[in-house]
Order: sequence, then structure tokens, then C-alpha cells
Amino acid sequence: MALAEGLSSKWISVSEPSPHVLHAELSRKPVNAFSVEFWTEYGALFDRLVAEGRDVRALVLSSALPKLFTAGIDDLAKDDAAEPMDAARTSLATYRHLLEFQHAIGAPDRCPFPVIAAVHGLVVGLGIDIISACDVRYGADGTQFTIKEVDVGLAADIGTLSYLPKITGNHSLMQNLHTPRAWGRTEVIAAALKLADLIASKSPIAVSGTKRILTHARDHSVSENLEYTAVWNAAALHTEDITSSMRAAKARVAPTFDPLRKPTPKL
Amino acid sequence: MALAEGLSSKWISVSEPSPHVLHAELSRKPVNAFSVEFWTEYGALFDRLVAEGRDVRALVLSSALPKLFTAGIDDLAKDDAAEPMDAARTSLATYRHLLEFQHAIGAPDRCPFPVIAAVHGLVVGLGIDIISACDVRYGADGTQFTIKEVDVGLAADIGTLSYLPKITGNHSLMQNLHTPRAWGRTEVIAAALKLADLIASKSPIAVSGTKRILTHARDHSVSENLEYTAVWNAAALHTEDITSSMRAAKARVAPTFDPLRKPTPKL
Amino acid sequence: MALAEGLSSKWISVSEPSPHVLHAELSRKPVNAFSVEFWTEYGALFDRLVAEGRDVRALVLSSALPKLFTAGIDDLAKDDAAEPMDAARTSLATYRHLLEFQHAIGAPDRCPFPVIAAVHGLVVGLGIDIISACDVRYGADGTQFTIKEVDVGLAADIGTLSYLPKITGNHSLMQNLHTPRAWGRTEVIAAALKLADLIASKSPIAVSGTKRILTHARDHSVSENLEYTAVWNAAALHTEDITSSMRAAKARVAPTFDPLRKPTPKL
Amino acid sequence: MALAEGLSSKWISVSEPSPHVLHAELSRKPVNAFSVEFWTEYGALFDRLVAEGRDVRALVLSSALPKLFTAGIDDLAKDDAAEPMDAARTSLATYRHLLEFQHAIGAPDRCPFPVIAAVHGLVVGLGIDIISACDVRYGADGTQFTIKEVDVGLAADIGTLSYLPKITGNHSLMQNLHTPRAWGRTEVIAAALKLADLIASKSPIAVSGTKRILTHARDHSVSENLEYTAVWNAAALHTEDITSSMRAAKARVAPTFDPLRKPTPKL
Amino acid sequence: MALAEGLSSKWISVSEPSPHVLHAELSRKPVNAFSVEFWTEYGALFDRLVAEGRDVRALVLSSALPKLFTAGIDDLAKDDAAEPMDAARTSLATYRHLLEFQHAIGAPDRCPFPVIAAVHGLVVGLGIDIISACDVRYGADGTQFTIKEVDVGLAADIGTLSYLPKITGNHSLMQNLHTPRAWGRTEVIAAALKLADLIASKSPIAVSGTKRILTHARDHSVSENLEYTAVWNAAALHTEDITSSMRAAKARVAPTFDPLRKPTPKL
Amino acid sequence: MALAEGLSSKWISVSEPSPHVLHAELSRKPVNAFSVEFWTEYGALFDRLVAEGRDVRALVLSSALPKLFTAGIDDLAKDDAAEPMDAARTSLATYRHLLEFQHAIGAPDRCPFPVIAAVHGLVVGLGIDIISACDVRYGADGTQFTIKEVDVGLAADIGTLSYLPKITGNHSLMQNLHTPRAWGRTEVIAAALKLADLIASKSPIAVSGTKRILTHARDHSVSENLEYTAVWNAAALHTEDITSSMRAAKARVAPTFDPLRKPTPKL
Repeated sequence: MALAEGLSSKWISVSEPSPHVLHAELSRKPVNAFSVEFWTEYGALFDRLVAEGRDVRALVLSSALPKLFTAGIDDLAKDDAAEPMDAARTSLATYRHLLEFQHAIGAPDRCPFPVIAAVHGLVVGLGIDIISACDVRYGADGTQFTIKEVDVGLAADIGTLSYLPKITGNHSLMQNLHTPRAWGRTEVIAAALKLADLIASKSPIAVSGTKRILTHARDHSVSENLEYTAVWNAAALHTEDITSSMRAAKARVAPTFDPLRKPTPKL
Repeated sequence: MALAEGLSSKWISVSEPSPHVLHAELSRKPVNAFSVEFWTEYGALFDRLVAEGRDVRALVLSSALPKLFTAGIDDLAKDDAAEPMDAARTSLATYRHLLEFQHAIGAPDRCPFPVIAAVHGLVVGLGIDIISACDVRYGADGTQFTIKEVDVGLAADIGTLSYLPKITGNHSLMQNLHTPRAWGRTEVIAAALKLADLIASKSPIAVSGTKRILTHARDHSVSENLEYTAVWNAAALHTEDITSSMRAAKARVAPTFDPLRKPTPKL
Repeated sequence: MALAEGLSSKWISVSEPSPHVLHAELSRKPVNAFSVEFWTEYGALFDRLVAEGRDVRALVLSSALPKLFTAGIDDLAKDDAAEPMDAARTSLATYRHLLEFQHAIGAPDRCPFPVIAAVHGLVVGLGIDIISACDVRYGADGTQFTIKEVDVGLAADIGTLSYLPKITGNHSLMQNLHTPRAWGRTEVIAAALKLADLIASKSPIAVSGTKRILTHARDHSVSENLEYTAVWNAAALHTEDITSSMRAAKARVAPTFDPLRKPTPKL
Repeated sequence: MALAEGLSSKWISVSEPSPHVLHAELSRKPVNAFSVEFWTEYGALFDRLVAEGRDVRALVLSSALPKLFTAGIDDLAKDDAAEPMDAARTSLATYRHLLEFQHAIGAPDRCPFPVIAAVHGLVVGLGIDIISACDVRYGADGTQFTIKEVDVGLAADIGTLSYLPKITGNHSLMQNLHTPRAWGRTEVIAAALKLADLIASKSPIAVSGTKRILTHARDHSVSENLEYTAVWNAAALHTEDITSSMRAAKARVAPTFDPLRKPTPKL
Repeated sequence: MALAEGLSSKWISVSEPSPHVLHAELSRKPVNAFSVEFWTEYGALFDRLVAEGRDVRALVLSSALPKLFTAGIDDLAKDDAAEPMDAARTSLATYRHLLEFQHAIGAPDRCPFPVIAAVHGLVVGLGIDIISACDVRYGADGTQFTIKEVDVGLAADIGTLSYLPKITGNHSLMQNLHTPRAWGRTEVIAAALKLADLIASKSPIAVSGTKRILTHARDHSVSENLEYTAVWNAAALHTEDITSSMRAAKARVAPTFDPLRKPTPKL
Repeated sequence: MALAEGLSSKWISVSEPSPHVLHAELSRKPVNAFSVEFWTEYGALFDRLVAEGRDVRALVLSSALPKLFTAGIDDLAKDDAAEPMDAARTSLATYRHLLEFQHAIGAPDRCPFPVIAAVHGLVVGLGIDIISACDVRYGADGTQFTIKEVDVGLAADIGTLSYLPKITGNHSLMQNLHTPRAWGRTEVIAAALKLADLIASKSPIAVSGTKRILTHARDHSVSENLEYTAVWNAAALHTEDITSSMRAAKARVAPTFDPLRKPTPKL
């Protein structure tokens, strides 16, 4: 049996460019947006390779679309179509949904062979989670990596916050890389205030969740942090900040958000 | 109520330069030296923001003094003014004191919003602990970071050894960054011997404590390492190496230190 | 008693170039190859310094041979000379052997003073394990670091996979450093496929073991990962891939390897 | 759809003796010996209940054979029928096989409802692993528990050594102490069903939360479990089950509760 | 200053039945129900004893009401009076509230002296959390322990699920087994006070060290706890209490000990 | 070479009452008090058995003195004879001393065979640490266990606080529960030897694997221990001991097993 035989599916074509090497190409036009069906198909490919014991020794993952790797999740809103339940039940259902989602995207971690992500163009949102769970990441010139989650009012929960600090090696790297090199005292405070303004314009639910999950990731294993993130976002996803963020983005205006909690009158 | 209302205190002035953004400026002349009273005031500011639930979304921390962020701890010696107790009781008292000190300096870690340190000039000793417990660090051109503790005969114990390896991403980074790039075998051994000489001129209590705490930090969470450091230094601070180091620095001579233990006569 | 008195042994000469500083030079011609006797001698030096309580404050480790630090392990094959036992007993014996080997190479970690490795020329295989367990690493210009284990069909098990990701700060660093900076989509996929080909040409036992141990290292302490590695390789070393790799290297041909397991006929 | 509809399989018959309560009976004559096919069927039953979201609130597991619960594994030897591989490959294949075996037997641990094992007669080898992964264990008078693995030359590996020390040390201590001492098979099943009824009459939000937190507590420190509990209940407290429970208690009637989630229509 | 001076508050009366022993009695009629105000007062008592450094060597906690220890939480519903927020914000507010609640009830865990709960009658809901965070639990004959949380539709979250499995599994097993079976309220308090007297006659250095190490042992591996114990006792062994204990034993008189630290004059 | 040949030393006599079973008797008159020399000799016995690879399958530890097992440590005070050092240096020296002491007393934990303590009369102080580090504890009727450390002003630090809560909570619960209640010294040793005989008749691969996994289980989570067990048994299952055990069971004869490894000829 040829190594790649019968592996191609609806949106993933799989070939064998060299002996023992598979090449999986994502191809869901127009932007490789991930629906539940797509990420189920994605996770199933890896789990099947493990279950069937095919003699794969390395796998390259890339996009068949010329402009981008993926634009991220297809449609955040659809999930709400289910029948109304009380808030606790809704949270529990979200928690289970997130565990399944993490399980599919984390499938390369469970393979006995290395998975090499070769990306180009846009790598947005879930795209970062996907390549974080691979073993090696190659980026074409001009690739743009965008962690969009905070912009739409939520903390990333499919792996980015769990894997990325360990992959890049530290927690403050990204900020440091962008630090201009010749600032005086006035400029450095001005820059810090500008960053603070930017943060203050985002959803406080998303910002405080991102901070808590990053701190937890620093002191726990990847698998513990993934489970913890699922419990956290099981509640945190049910915020109007997501709708506000999206509506504001569409209207190209600045969104506004409620504070995290009402000030305590007198303590 | 304005966001910054009533927050300014003896040595910290707090303003609201943009909506939801606080700017806290340290201002204790001449060098922002930290006494017990100052770090108590520092920790209390953050704890109060959490307790009152003010709608802060980001906070910038800087120094109001033109030349530096902070020169570090005010007066290491004062602690000895207390009534004499036996060595075990003294150690236990020191342990409790260190836990309180760590709790105050680690206050930004307990806030739901990011804290951005914007530093310039000298950042000495405790200054490194302070910015390590913040979420983002911006440095002005020419900022000088100095971890002084070993020079005065003690291992840093308020957070530097716990946070810094995780923030910078690794344990040997600082040495590696300073490694010249064009050495032959003779030069590299000479350089290593020079570093060894430098280490050998420092307090052995401080050097071995620093090594043990760094190794512990590599394998434990930040909170576990902080507690461990407190237990360790509860004893290790009571060494004459601190006095020797300070006296020698003042006299601008090389200090001398006793060995870690008397050689075992015959084993 | 002079600090270095009586410390020199068969293949390690020890001197005291400055007060409290020891210089240990490895000198086993022609290539500092490590036999069981050599690494036993190596570990014993450090353990003796701790046991005798000599007033060492820093130690420099280097090679006395002009061309290299070490070519690695002397003779992987010799271990098989023992009487035949069943596979479980053989594995258990290997496990114990690995624990002793790790204990000797990890001796610098147990010293109260810093150990500075000053290396030049070739640093191969076990050489990486040795310098990983030191506190500081200085490299001469032109030093070549080679992790050879996968090339001979095994996963490194004396410390490289446990320490290195924490020393370098992350898991994907080496790959990233080699990433060309101006690739388009075609080139990046071609590069990834080339890397995949290289991996596929190596022993699958070695590649999958390396991956599993690295993943374990990410989420565990160094000591836990060392013990885990010993259990893993207690079985994994008994593969024909090692013989195949060595024979092919000698004959300068490409080795061939059996798959990890026979494909499951129908599931 | 009736709760037990379509759940019975080749060797496991499933009924619904009370609302929301399932009774699964093992029935593979003559001694409920577990082949690969049988434990695959066993694990699949629980995984299916989770996937389909049926409104199960407690499940009783027992044996339909009059003399025993299970005699353990069917045939240890069969595994050797596969083609010969070298020892490392064979070990790796065994490793994967054991992970799959553990995954099937550990299935009750992944259910949101409690699983109550009601055993009688002989409980041998794998039988201990099976009941260890359940939440409550009831034993009929004269039940004989036998950990056979050492007698046939191997260490138990499907859960007995992992769970049992913690189970006998704490979690189920209270239940075991209260187990009546003179029950026959009929009585022990009746008692287990009665406990299941009681559990099924409680809030499913409360029962599944309690179970999840207890499982987390077993593997984490007190402080980690406290923090985790806070995150969990931050969502779980906002359920109408609290109001329903209180109102029903006041009116001295039995409360009713919604299922944890709507059954998935077709998967 | 008398040991108990100024400690009694609205619902907790504190006396000093023996030297160095405090007796705290809960007295909020009719059923010692815990409101936010009551548990804030409860936690503050212990935190104050730590902050002021009073020379307490053991504390007995009991109820002044004749029929019960406590009926649990006062009013679960009141919390809902706050302004409506979206579910994510409500969850986050609850999370913070639970952390504060846990912090107050866990206060005995942070004291350097043992806290002995002496309970009788009903111990309901929060009562279990309260005694779980104490060091020793004595129960009068006929005491009824009720974990009520599941009955009102929630999972216990203030400590019961975190501590209880470990407490019943080990730490207090010996005490519980030796608890006489036919005590009334008077006898159980008398017995607890007798145990408290015994503890108070021992070295405070030894008692507080033993407690700290036991707590650490509960949450760490044996090897970590051994290493931690070595660091702790490296200081704690150098106390005059050892000499005092030995001399007193030889002379068959009661030893006397200094307090752990001098009371802080005014804070 | 006879199994016990050359093992007896100054205060420990070692015999071989049955094949593969050693009996070590402590005999330092008048009260088996432990000096530094005695515990060094004690630890060395076990470390030597491991190093020489003798085919020991179980070891019984008891006292040769008629009235007691041990009265504990010989002389706490002697340690102070050393030259005065400052408190930090003294603490560091004590820390190292304690690590060595723990290492000697913990030696049974590092053996691949079970160690059974059979005690009678007084078991005081260090005696508890000693039996805590054994695998099974049998106590004669009237044995008195005394944790003396608190009475002389210190917290136990050689293992009692680390092991005991976990031992009484679980691992040895079953053995202790079945301990007959009216044994004298002769009977308790006879019973321990009988248990040792039983263990020695089993597969050494199975017994040492069971012990290693149980020890790992004590310090890890269930999921980590499951994964570790899979790696361990991936090798350990491929032993002829399984076939031998089964064949012997069928033929109703006693099986025989190869030793774990060939004795090292000369080390």
C-alpha cells in the first residue's frame, strides 16, 4: 500500500513526495477558515496515521492556497445557535467543546514522527495554535503572524498561550524585540503610555484572561495549562465584549467595554 | 470618582494620563532607596487597586527622579537593631520578614491588569526584583541594570533569581551574550580563568546560594522558588561576608572571606 | 595543603592557576574518547572535591589536546560483551548502567561552586552532555558542536535532551537559527521537504525517542527527565539501527531501517 | 429515546433500572475473561455515553455471571504471534498497546457521572484495575480480590499500582468502612443501585463538578486544587439547580434537574 | 499584655485558659451561620495573631452554642443582589470572591502554631471546610458531620474537597482512631484543651517547624520534602530549646522557652 | 560465593536464612544508638548490595538486642565540637550533613528488592525514620513507637515527616491491618522471614518492577505514573519469568528464576 493511499479528504490533500515523507496541504477556499468540520478532519488525519501504524517518518504541513496559511476560525458566532441553557450548563458545554478542539489541534504532539509546518502569507489566530503544536516551524519571507484573539475580546485557548512562551523561550520576548534602541527617559515613558493606551482599548475580559493563562503556563506543563485554559474560557467566552469587538471592527470604530467589576462602594 | 483619586502617597505619585491608564512615579529623593516603609507603601498601592475594583486597564511604573530608577535597598544593616535572639529564632524572624518583602514587591503579579515598567538610568539590586515582577519592561537608552547582591555577600532573594531566568528565557544567556566571537583555545581558557578569578573574589556564601537557588528555580514554579529562597536566606543572610563586602567596598580594597567549611581532616 | 594536591589522575590533570581556582584538563589521547573508566574518573573528581570540603570557589574545565574537546563515547559496542540475558534483564541492566553514567556526568551540578567549561575544536556527542551539566560555557572561535546520537541510531541519554532546551531557552531555536531569511512559498516547502528527507533517512527508533524525551523535558524537571530517559533507553538502545548506522557510516553508504511497527492489517 | 437504547453489545448488556441510572452487566462466559476485543468494547461503551451526551447520572457496573466479576486477562501469550522485530521495536509496540489498554480501562474516569462497581465472587488481575478506575466500589460478602500480576511474572500496569495506593489511602475509605459485612450477590447489587438512585436524584451540575474536583485533588497540591476549584465554580455556581434544590427542600418534594447537555442529534 | 487581650470581637470570644494557649469560641446565635462579615472576622483573628507576633503556642477552636458547631453559610442567595453583569464578568467576580473566602477560612494553615478544632453537635457545610484547615480535629460523641453542598446544587469550594481526601487518607488518621467514643461537649473541649496544654509545653521552634514541614510534605514528593527539611533545619537546629529540653528532661522539671519572636510594639 | 559472605560488619551481622533472603541484625550495645559511624555503616551495607549485584530478593532488618529496636541517635551534642563559624556557614555545614544522613538512612529505597523491618520493644526517634524508608513494617506485640524529636526541641528531619503521612495514609495499610496482635519478638521475626520467603519465591523482574512503580506512584500523579509504567513494562514484559511462572503454576511446582544481573566480578 502506498504511504499516502486513501488519506486525502475533503479539505486536506495528502501526497508522498519522498519515501516515508507525507505532505499534507490545507485547501479550503477562499481562506482556509476552520469550521468544526475542518478541524475535526484535521485532527483525524494524524490520529489515523498513528492508529494504522503507517511507516511515516516525517510530515510537512502547508497551505495549498497561494496567499495564506489560514485566516483562523470560521465563525465564532455559530456556536450560539444551540438551545438556551442556564449559564452553568452553557459553560460546561463550552468546556467540553474546547477540550475536543484542543485535542484535534494538538494531534501532531501525539505522533511518533516530527511534523514540520511550512507557512507563508497570513497566519492568523488558530494558525498560531496549529503551528505551535508542530515540532518545527519554517516561515516564508514576508509571513505575517497575527495573534488576533484579544482584538475580538477573548484569550487564545487552543494552544497559543500554552505552547508559545515555551517555544519562543520567554515571556517578554515579543515586547523586547520591538523596543526602540535609542530612547531617553521621556520617550520611554511615552512609549509605555502608548502601549498602555493600546491595551486599555481592548476587552478587559480578554486582557485579564490572557495574563492569567500566561502566568499559569509559566509554572505548569503544557497539558495542565491546556486543561486549565478550557475551564477558564468555559466561562470567559460568554461575554458581550466579543460581539462589541466584532461589531466595532466591522464599523471601523473603537469598541467600548464595561469594567471588570463594579467598584466596591465602601469597604 | 476619578481613577487616580486619593492614590498618591508619601513617595509615590499616581496620575491618570489616559482613560483607564494609571501612571505611578517613584519619588523618594535622592535615589529612590527602598526602606521597609517605602516597599510597604509600594505593595499597598497595587493591593488597594485590586481591593477597590477601580477600572484600571494598564499601569505604567517609572521613576520621577531624572538620573535613575532606583539604587536599591536603603539600609541592609538596620534589621539587626532588634533584641538578640538565638540563631534559630533569628532565622525564623528573617524568613517571615522576607516573605512579607516578597509579597509587597510581587504585588503587580496579583493585579488583573498589565503593569509596564518604564525605566532609565540606574536600575540596581531591588530594582531588578521590582521590574521582574511586572508584565512588560521598557528600558531607556543607556539604562544600566546591576544585580549587586553577590557583591555585598548575599544571594538575591526578592524575585530576581526566581523570575529572571524565565523572563530572559534561559540560564546561561548573560554569559553567552558577552562571549567574544574570535577566540582561540588560549584566549578562551584565559577568559574562563578570568571569570573564575572574579567569582573567587566574591563571598562564597553568596555564590553558592545563588547557584543553588538558580538550580531550584529551573525546576520549580515561581511561587515555590520564592518560598524556598526565603527559607534559604533566612539562614544565609546572617553572615559576616555582607559586612566584609560593604566595608571593603567603602575602603576600595578587595574583601577576604572564610571558606564555606573547614576541610575534613581525613575521611 | 595546596588546593590541587593529589587531585590529578590518569587522564585528568588538575592545577591551581589562581587562589581558590582549579583548572581540570582532560587528556586521553588521541581524541579524549570516554570509556567507562574515564567517565568514572571524571565524576569522582567532582564528588571528591565536595566530600573533602576543599576551598574551591570556581573550576575551569578544558581539554589539553590541541584539536578538540572530546570526540565522545569510546566504544558503544563493548557493552554487549556481557553474558546473554533475556530482553527484560538486559534492559534493566542498561537502565542501571545509564543511571551511573548520568550520575558521573552530572557531578558538576552537585558542586557548591560554579564550573566553567572552556571548549575548542570538536565537541561531539557526550561532549554536549558534559558541558550542559556545567554552569557556564565558553567556546573558542570555530568550535563545532555536534549532537551525533541520532546519526548512530539512538536518542541522547546522558543529559543533552534534558538540559539543552532549558539552557538555550527553547525547543525550536536550532531550527529557527538556520531558517533562510528570503524564501517564497515554493522555497519554504522545498526546504521543509529537504529537512523531512534528512529526518526520514535516520533511525526511526532514534528520531521518535528523541521527540518523546524532548517533550517530556519540556514539562518536567531535569532530574525527572534524566530518570525517565534512562528507563526509555534501557529498552531503546537494544536496536539493530545502531549497528546499521555505524556500518553504513563506515562504508559511506545510506543506512536502511525497519519501520517502527508492522502496519496493522485491518482495524 | 430510552436511556439504554442501543447500548447493549456483544458481551455487555445495558439496562435502565431507574430514571437516569444505567446498569451495565459484563457477560462473557465462562469467566468474563478480557480479550483485546472485550476491553475495546468496554471502553467504547463509556466513551459513547460521553460523546452522545445521554442524560446518565450514575452507572452501576457488575457481572452477570453468578460466580465471579472477572478472572482477568484472557490470554497473555497471544500477543507474541506478531512477526519478530528487534527488542526496541517490540518494546515500542508494547508501549503503544499498553497506552491503548489503559485508555480503555480508564474510561470511567472520563465520564461526568459517577461509576459504581458492584462486585462479587472473584475479582482477579485486570478486575482490580477496572474497579480502581471507578468512583465507588461495593463488595459482596466473600468477595476475593486478587492482584495476580506478580504471580505470573509481571508488574500490574493498567492502573492498579497507580490508583490503588491513593484509593485505599483516602478517596473511598469511608464507603469501604461502611460496607455491610454479610451481603450476597443480590444484596450488593441492590445496595449499589440504591446508592446510584440517590446520586441520580441530586443536581447533575453538582455531582459532575464534585467528581471533577476530587479527581483534580488527587493529582495536585491543596493550593492548586483550591485555585482550580475557584475557576470551576465561578461558572458552576450560576445554575438554577441551586434554586431548584432549595425550593424542593422547602416544599419537601423531590427536585428535578435538566440534563447536563442536550443529546447530540446524530454524530 | 495578657495573651488574649483585645482579641475578642463581635461573634468570637477569645480567652487564655493556660499560659500560651488561646481558646476561641464562635458565638453567633442562633446557629453560628457564617455571613461574609463573620468569616472576615474569623480570618482576621488568625492573621492578627501572626502579624502581632503574640506568643501563642496552641489554639483551641470551638462553638459557644450548646447544640452545634455551625450550620454553615448564612445566605447563599444574597450575593445576587449586585447589579447585573454579563456571565463572564459575573464569573470573574465570583472567582475573586471565592479566593477571598478561601483565604479567610484557610487562615489557620498560615499560623506557626497548631490549631485544634473541638467540635460537637452539628458540623454542616462550611464547618467541614473550617475544621479541614485546622491541624487536629476532636469530635464529641454524637457529632454529625454533613457535607451539604451537593444537596443544594453546588460543589464544595472552600477547602473540603481539597483537604479532606488527604486528611482522611493520612495526616490525622492517628488522632481520629484514638478519639474516645463517648464524649459530651464538656469532655471533648477538656480533651482538646489538654492536648493544647501538652503542645504548649514543648519547644515553639520544634512545634512550628514540625507543622511547616508536614504541610510542605502534603503537597510535595518525598525527595523534595527531604531537601526542604534539610534547608529548614539547617537553621532551626541552632536553638537553645534543644539544650533547655534536654536539661529539663534530666532534671525532671518542665522546660521553659522563649517566644518565637518579640511582639511587634505597634504596627 | 554465599549470599551473605563478607557482609557482616562492626555492628551489623548479616546471614542468609533462606535462599536469596538476607537477615541483617543491628547489634550495638547497649541500645543500638546511632552514631555517625553506625549510620554510615548502615547505609553502606545496602549500597554495597546494589553495587555488587548480589542476587538478594528480600531482606529482613531487625535488632539483635532483646529489649529494643533502637533508642535513636547517639549524641546530638557532639556535632558542636567543630571550630566556631558564623551562623550562615554553620547552617550550610549542617545542611550538607543532613543530606548525607538522609542518604544513608534512605538506602533501602534505592534497593531493587523489598526490605522488611521486623521490630520489637522500643522504636525511638531515628528508628521511625529507618523503618519509614523500608517497604514493609511488622511490629511485635507491645512494640512502642516514639517520635521523640519534638521532645528534645527539633523537628524530625531524616524521613519521618516525609514518609510517614504517606505510609499511614496508604502504602502499608493492608499489611498493618493484617498484623496479628499478640506476637513476641521471636514470632514477629519468624513472620517477617516467612513473608520474605514468599517474596523471594516470585520473579525478581516482577518484584523489583512493582517496587519501582509503587515508589514512583507515591510522588507522581496517576496519569504520570500510568505513562511511566507503560515505558517500564514495555521492556519488562519480555522476560522468560512470565513463561516460567505459568509453566510452574500448571505443573504445580515452584518456579526458578535467574538473578536480576550477573554479580560484578571485581569493582
